Amino acid sequence: MSAWLMAAFLRGLDAGETVALTRAMLESGKILRLPSVTRPKVDKHSTGGVGDKISLCLGPLVAACGAAVPMIAGRGLGHTGGTLDKLEAIPGYDVHLSASRFEKVVREVGVAIIGQTAELAPADRRIYALRDVTGTVACIPLIVASILSKKLAEGIDALVLDVKTGAGAFMRDEAQARELARTMVDLGTDAGLTTVALLTDMSTPLGLTVGNALEVRESVEVLAGGGPSDIIELTVALAREMLAAAGQPDADVEAALADGRAMDVWRRMVAAQGGDPDAPLPVAEHTEVVTAERDGVMESMDAMGIAVAAWRLGAGRARKEDPVDFAAGIELHAKPGDAVMAGQPVLTLHTSEPAKFERAHEALAGAITWAAEGTAPSPRRPIVIDRIA
Amino acid sequence: MSAWLMAAFLRGLDAGETVALTRAMLESGKILRLPSVTRPKVDKHSTGGVGDKISLCLGPLVAACGAAVPMIAGRGLGHTGGTLDKLEAIPGYDVHLSASRFEKVVREVGVAIIGQTAELAPADRRIYALRDVTGTVACIPLIVASILSKKLAEGIDALVLDVKTGAGAFMRDEAQARELARTMVDLGTDAGLTTVALLTDMSTPLGLTVGNALEVRESVEVLAGGGPSDIIELTVALAREMLAAAGQPDADVEAALADGRAMDVWRRMVAAQGGDPDAPLPVAEHTEVVTAERDGVMESMDAMGIAVAAWRLGAGRARKEDPVDFAAGIELHAKPGDAVMAGQPVLTLHTSEPAKFERAHEALAGAITWAAEGTAPSPRRPIVIDRIA
Repeated sequence: MSAWLMAAFLRGLDAGETVALTRAMLESGKILRLPSVTRPKVDKHSTGGVGDKISLCLGPLVAACGAAVPMIAGRGLGHTGGTLDKLEAIPGYDVHLSASRFEKVVREVGVAIIGQTAELAPADRRIYALRDVTGTVACIPLIVASILSKKLAEGIDALVLDVKTGAGAFMRDEAQARELARTMVDLGTDAGLTTVALLTDMSTPLGLTVGNALEVRESVEVLAGGGPSDIIELTVALAREMLAAAGQPDADVEAALADGRAMDVWRRMVAAQGGDPDAPLPVAEHTEVVTAERDGVMESMDAMGIAVAAWRLGAGRARKEDPVDFAAGIELHAKPGDAVMAGQPVLTLHTSEPAKFERAHEALAGAITWAAEGTAPSPRRPIVIDRIA
Repeated sequence: MSAWLMAAFLRGLDAGETVALTRAMLESGKILRLPSVTRPKVDKHSTGGVGDKISLCLGPLVAACGAAVPMIAGRGLGHTGGTLDKLEAIPGYDVHLSASRFEKVVREVGVAIIGQTAELAPADRRIYALRDVTGTVACIPLIVASILSKKLAEGIDALVLDVKTGAGAFMRDEAQARELARTMVDLGTDAGLTTVALLTDMSTPLGLTVGNALEVRESVEVLAGGGPSDIIELTVALAREMLAAAGQPDADVEAALADGRAMDVWRRMVAAQGGDPDAPLPVAEHTEVVTAERDGVMESMDAMGIAVAAWRLGAGRARKEDPVDFAAGIELHAKPGDAVMAGQPVLTLHTSEPAKFERAHEALAGAITWAAEGTAPSPRRPIVIDRIA
């Protein structure tokens, strides 16, 4: 298998080979049917980004609009965060539900977000472990087969892909990201799944927080009708695609976010999975603030530099079995295009271990650049670059 | 390792990488020193061919001329035969000598031919097992590292390579065979070994026998001053190269073959390794003769067709652990360029299991072609195509 993975990595797989691999991985385990869930079932997959907490609002929002979201999410590894780690920052939240309990929560609440089980596409885990040690992770057909086999195993009707590109994305290069999106849409469609992809910008972290508990807090702000504009933009865009793919193109997504229906589903989901939606989230004992050295307009904020700093503060893990520090992470007080004054806070670093600040600061060196004097502030760039269907 | 082998197979290794691999494989085990052997030590390696029994005459011949030949040989696998299997056709011959006994036989007789030991370049065995199951055998740098690491572990001073090309060779393509020869000569020389290669023809089986006991019988004929001209040609050419590389360019090789000195060394080697040089060799219980259908001149005899037929008669093994039928094989009564008359024997097939004749005949279909009527007989083609030093 290792030799085969290297051959696939170096030579690629054509569409037929990728379909055959996807099918073999899918058929290595069970396929969920969720027979008691009568609503159309739709899920989203993101290729992973920095500050990407979208699933937390998106699942409840889409469920609030009438579709079912049986979401099986992942953990963070390396610089990108994982939805499961964020949810586990909520006291009591259990990401390991039995198949019958998962079905019950999806049926009754409309959405459940759990971790991968050993029963669905088990070949993917084994193969991923080999890819990890053989340097064959970054290979489009292997990525496609891994994602699609797991998503097809959820027994969903439609899938929306958030394929990220830019400095903080797995596929930095836009052409490669487009190729990945195109391949996944084609193969997902071939497999009988309504599949759409949004190509989205990941040059700058999403929202104003990076780190598990910080991102949950920000998600709750969005569900409460506030929150950063980029999170709202992407959540709404993905929710519209998911609902359209699930046969509900006219759902009023923005209303469901504004009037508290999505928040209500969120609270019910958290409670149904054992969590306390009102419990205080973990707070870091130690913080340090990075301030602006002079007045100016921020030109760029490198998502990778922020991600590595957050990771070094304890928000991420180096190995799959490592624990994460739920409270660790970074708050962003300004983003590219914003004007700041000398001494104004730009970042707040959070950690449980103050010894970690130094290496976090090292990762931040050069991560933020400032525009030439006299540059005017500018509006934030749109997140959605393209739609691929 | 499997992934790495596939990467090496698909991308190749440069000279520096091949040297590093060879050195790592060499240093995975012991290196023989044979301190009591005072003569220059020289060995030959053949890339493997059909009817290639050259080592059996060559070792004793070179020893008879004054060099020491500490030869570690291999078994047959797939269509090519192995020197160890041929020697084991001799009743009592033991290819598993201890290091001290091996040294004693080389010192006292001048030559010993034994099997690989677990102590010399053990990484090669492990790696070869992986190459076998990952389809990465046919890769020049991996072949070079495998051969050279084992030969360097013999502690020899000089190495002569018989790199075969043509239908029955591992490297059918002459350009690839030249590349292999060139790479091995360069890397062997870099490693401090006097290294020379002969590029030789393997389009037609060597000599007039294919199969273990049949080839021993033919080798003994050559040592007795007879035998087929191609065997003599190649044996003498390789012996001259080995002796020149060992510092004895003026040795009278042909005399040592003609006057029985090589035969004398052969008999002493067989006896020293537990064999009886006078014992009758295994003889097949069943034979079938293939005759010419009409008068004519043989145009070609495909070495691969003959090899597969001999293999199906029981001369070779499909898996490393399979036994071989020492008596099985094929005698050739004519070779390309020879004129035969209708009804004259062309081949005699030997086996211990008559059920095997049918599939052997199938392998022979089309293996021999006949020249257009009126074509005159022609002399046999020279075996040695080129010398690469």
